[in-house]
Amino acid sequence: MSEYRAPIRDMQFVLKELAGLDEVVQLPGCEEASADVVDAVLEEAAKFAEGVLSPLNMGGDQEGALFKDGQVTMPRGFKEAYRQFAESGWTALGCEPEWGGQGLPKLLAAPVSEMWKSANHAFSLCPLLTSGAIEALVLSGTDTLKQTFLEKMVSGEWTGTMNITEPGAGSDLAAIRTRAEPQADNTYKVFGQKIFITYGEHDLAENIIHLVLARTPTAPEGIKGISLFIVPKFMVNDDGSPGARNDAWCVSIEHKLGIHASPTAVMAFGDKGGATGYLVGEENRGIEYMFIMMNAARFGVGMEGVAVCERAYQRARDYARDRVQGTDIGVRGGAKVPIIAHPDVRRMLMSMRAQAEASRALAYVVAGAHDKALHHPDTELRKQNQAFADLMIPVVKGWSTEIGIKVASTGIQVHGGMGYMEETGASQHLRDARISTIYEGTTGIQANDLIGRKMARDGGATLRSVIGMMRALDADLARQGNEHLSAIRTRFQAAVDELARAGEWLVANYAKDVRAASAGAVPFLTLFGIVAGGWQMTRAALVAQAKIDGGDSDPFYPAKVITARFFADHLLSQAEGLASTVIEGATGVMVLAEEQF
Amino acid sequence: MSEYRAPIRDMQFVLKELAGLDEVVQLPGCEEASADVVDAVLEEAAKFAEGVLSPLNMGGDQEGALFKDGQVTMPRGFKEAYRQFAESGWTALGCEPEWGGQGLPKLLAAPVSEMWKSANHAFSLCPLLTSGAIEALVLSGTDTLKQTFLEKMVSGEWTGTMNITEPGAGSDLAAIRTRAEPQADNTYKVFGQKIFITYGEHDLAENIIHLVLARTPTAPEGIKGISLFIVPKFMVNDDGSPGARNDAWCVSIEHKLGIHASPTAVMAFGDKGGATGYLVGEENRGIEYMFIMMNAARFGVGMEGVAVCERAYQRARDYARDRVQGTDIGVRGGAKVPIIAHPDVRRMLMSMRAQAEASRALAYVVAGAHDKALHHPDTELRKQNQAFADLMIPVVKGWSTEIGIKVASTGIQVHGGMGYMEETGASQHLRDARISTIYEGTTGIQANDLIGRKMARDGGATLRSVIGMMRALDADLARQGNEHLSAIRTRFQAAVDELARAGEWLVANYAKDVRAASAGAVPFLTLFGIVAGGWQMTRAALVAQAKIDGGDSDPFYPAKVITARFFADHLLSQAEGLASTVIEGATGVMVLAEEQF
Repeated sequence: MSEYRAPIRDMQFVLKELAGLDEVVQLPGCEEASADVVDAVLEEAAKFAEGVLSPLNMGGDQEGALFKDGQVTMPRGFKEAYRQFAESGWTALGCEPEWGGQGLPKLLAAPVSEMWKSANHAFSLCPLLTSGAIEALVLSGTDTLKQTFLEKMVSGEWTGTMNITEPGAGSDLAAIRTRAEPQADNTYKVFGQKIFITYGEHDLAENIIHLVLARTPTAPEGIKGISLFIVPKFMVNDDGSPGARNDAWCVSIEHKLGIHASPTAVMAFGDKGGATGYLVGEENRGIEYMFIMMNAARFGVGMEGVAVCERAYQRARDYARDRVQGTDIGVRGGAKVPIIAHPDVRRMLMSMRAQAEASRALAYVVAGAHDKALHHPDTELRKQNQAFADLMIPVVKGWSTEIGIKVASTGIQVHGGMGYMEETGASQHLRDARISTIYEGTTGIQANDLIGRKMARDGGATLRSVIGMMRALDADLARQGNEHLSAIRTRFQAAVDELARAGEWLVANYAKDVRAASAGAVPFLTLFGIVAGGWQMTRAALVAQAKIDGGDSDPFYPAKVITARFFADHLLSQAEGLASTVIEGATGVMVLAEEQF
Repeated sequence: MSEYRAPIRDMQFVLKELAGLDEVVQLPGCEEASADVVDAVLEEAAKFAEGVLSPLNMGGDQEGALFKDGQVTMPRGFKEAYRQFAESGWTALGCEPEWGGQGLPKLLAAPVSEMWKSANHAFSLCPLLTSGAIEALVLSGTDTLKQTFLEKMVSGEWTGTMNITEPGAGSDLAAIRTRAEPQADNTYKVFGQKIFITYGEHDLAENIIHLVLARTPTAPEGIKGISLFIVPKFMVNDDGSPGARNDAWCVSIEHKLGIHASPTAVMAFGDKGGATGYLVGEENRGIEYMFIMMNAARFGVGMEGVAVCERAYQRARDYARDRVQGTDIGVRGGAKVPIIAHPDVRRMLMSMRAQAEASRALAYVVAGAHDKALHHPDTELRKQNQAFADLMIPVVKGWSTEIGIKVASTGIQVHGGMGYMEETGASQHLRDARISTIYEGTTGIQANDLIGRKMARDGGATLRSVIGMMRALDADLARQGNEHLSAIRTRFQAAVDELARAGEWLVANYAKDVRAASAGAVPFLTLFGIVAGGWQMTRAALVAQAKIDGGDSDPFYPAKVITARFFADHLLSQAEGLASTVIEGATGVMVLAEEQF
């Protein structure tokens, strides 16, 4: 059985060589993250992920969260693991020191969260949702709300949820119908049903703090009439301890394809007279607050894609090394070899590895930009980094999760028939990963956000600046005599041209024909993901080649160059086809009448 | 809940306009299949698939086959459905009249089997395996064996299995270790363990006829020392009734990702003194016989890919029509619309539909060629059709099953969050489909068979003749003024050129550097699948446009043209990238040392 090992070497490489860790740790507010601290955090996180979370992953899947009489019992070992997780300070890692957090930069939180997700996707959702709720409170809560809730949430004693979806309101938040009626004491009574509430009920913590989108009686229709409320499972006594049970109940949990250990609750608010809620921020600005959290949550879900690529790769590689089957191709009657010797198995492993490394590099680079956007002393640089992060987050979310599914499926394929047996663990990765392209906004929603809000709205300016950064690499590439770097250069240049071609077409046509543009949105997101991933792999190859040329004999560097080469010939090669589909594909999508389907 | 409806209109179109039904039914031995018979068979099969098999599909998945004390109990309803299936003559459809079969051509058996697979993948495996066993007996069994077993198998009273895989012998058949010791009475005693035996044990029929690969004591090492044996679960009395229990036992069944209602058995032969077996054909020629069956089985598994594309498409389309969410894109505050109105949902549906139609057309064309290869009076034409079918079967198997997985996954995506809930049924399609790229030879094995045995061995001659047929369409395409046909022409021409470029490279390099060729085998199979599917869609569009130009107002025809247009802009557009990967991708695959993974 394959054991998870955190890929610390590659994480360190990306942090330092690609994502600008040295720069980030010098930003005001990020000084805690000295090189020693970074190393120690990564090492401790690896120990926890490998030693505590990963061993619970398969049992959690098989046992699943259990619902009975309104209560959810988590699978064996989860409660103890969560207690250790909170006590070790992992819930507090990225949170503000004012509330007990460690205030470490997002750039460091990214690899740490990757480890949780690789080791145990279902477990990792609990802290992910809690940190989203914390962020909403920090940004928009009153002092009283902050004082009542934040410390316990940061310490992990209490967990958080996001209650957005309703049976009639999924991707369309404007359709939300949950009501919140103002009371004389400035609280609200909340009434309604929410579905798909991740960790909406569980037995890991003594209280659950629900963030709930709802409408007040005077709210306008549509998304501009939605407010954000805090609805705790237990009311909070004056001394901070949990008090009376609030009228917020888990009615059932879902039977899902995967993440069986993550309880997905149907929540009923107000069935017994009204759930007490507290307004967060101002009335009717709930969507706005939700979107602030959403960027973080989307990035977090994007990291799930990175994480499953890595985990599925490790499992498939370990199997391919152990499993002896057949002789070397072209050799009759020779010695039997492990299947990693077979070219097609290598191809699959390289594709898994290349996509894991590329998506990791891209995600960490975006995390670093996010830190700069928050903390850089230069206003203009803050703005530039924010624009970059805003543009790239739908790519990180959409692309990483789509490749996560493909890579997990390839992992099954490497195992052959054994991959289809649940005991191997390979198929759990596919089942778990399959949700990531759906929740926190489907890939279609990410892609439309990308071409609309993130590209058309600024007339393509941010896109052009990113393409400019990509093209700026060419000077370095041109100086390389190395065969692999030359091949990478040719592919990367061509792919960037295709990204520019498709991107300019979308920017030019978005206002003229939004339907045609939207028909190409997902192919464009795929194209952007591949080119942006290839960009980071190209940067990585340049760094690695420089180390090799400088006499460094670490085998990590030639492996990085070859992995980048693979990415170029097997992934960047798709750019032209995708760009053509974006530009010419709308007719085939749009012409059929609905009744012809 | 979406109900399966057999796509009879498209099936009829493909049979008649693309796969040469008129020609096939005039072949000697195929005359039973008059137009009336074809229509009646399709209609009755549709009724059975829709009315009996499809309603059992989800329950079969949830309940699963149950193992206890050596017995397997099938899910509720399966036994009665199987009884009706056999009594209605469906097991006998493609079998020889000599043994009670109906002797209908493979071209008609293809759409019928597609229906079983769309309606209930797990159920459909029982007749698939049985027909493989029948074929082996018909081709290689002695008269006594044929008389003892065939009628009951054709009638469906008894079922068949193929016992190939062992724990140490999966893709590598040379590693098979099961022994068969000759006895004085010309029978054999079989000893060994087989795994992954589909329908190795069940309660649908009174006897199970196992075909088992094993070695005799004097057999040479490797694949040339393997023989084929019949090992019945119950010995057969002189009056043809099942007699004493043979020493062939189901030890356990597997816990799998999908096809839960298809019992996958671990079989122990000879634990109680030896399982009585009968040699099929000559000693040491077992692999050869197995490969004859294998072509049929591989085609059958390829049809699973077609079938799941269709089924997943229907379910997603039905959901997209019902589910109201959001307003038309670009319209704020307008009426809420069903999600089929959203461009990205249409894109997903069109991609599902286009791949279902393309893979169906390709598979049926290959089935028609198979009939001609068996029955055509002209020797040269028999040979040509056999070469065509041999070349295309790994493409049908490999490509259709790979897209089956992708399309099933897209089906989940169309459902959004609901797709992740098992109650919707969308995720079952992905779980069920996931096996099809593995069993009967993984995609890697298909791809290596394609480039080696099917292309390199004849120096690319058959490939070139297929490319010639593809190019011959251009004269017809050039005469079209229609916008869609022009667009299709451009894409198709370019894609065929890419197929030729990559194919010639493989043929030229296979002997020189088999590892480099093999590294590109799967990308080449994907390329071949896309171009061959596009070829059939282009032919379909030409026929449809001719009907439109002739004044036919059936909306089926414009829909076909648009679907072909979609296929061209969204699938054929990938050809250039894939060809480049085939030709230039080997370095990235092969350079890393095993310890660098």
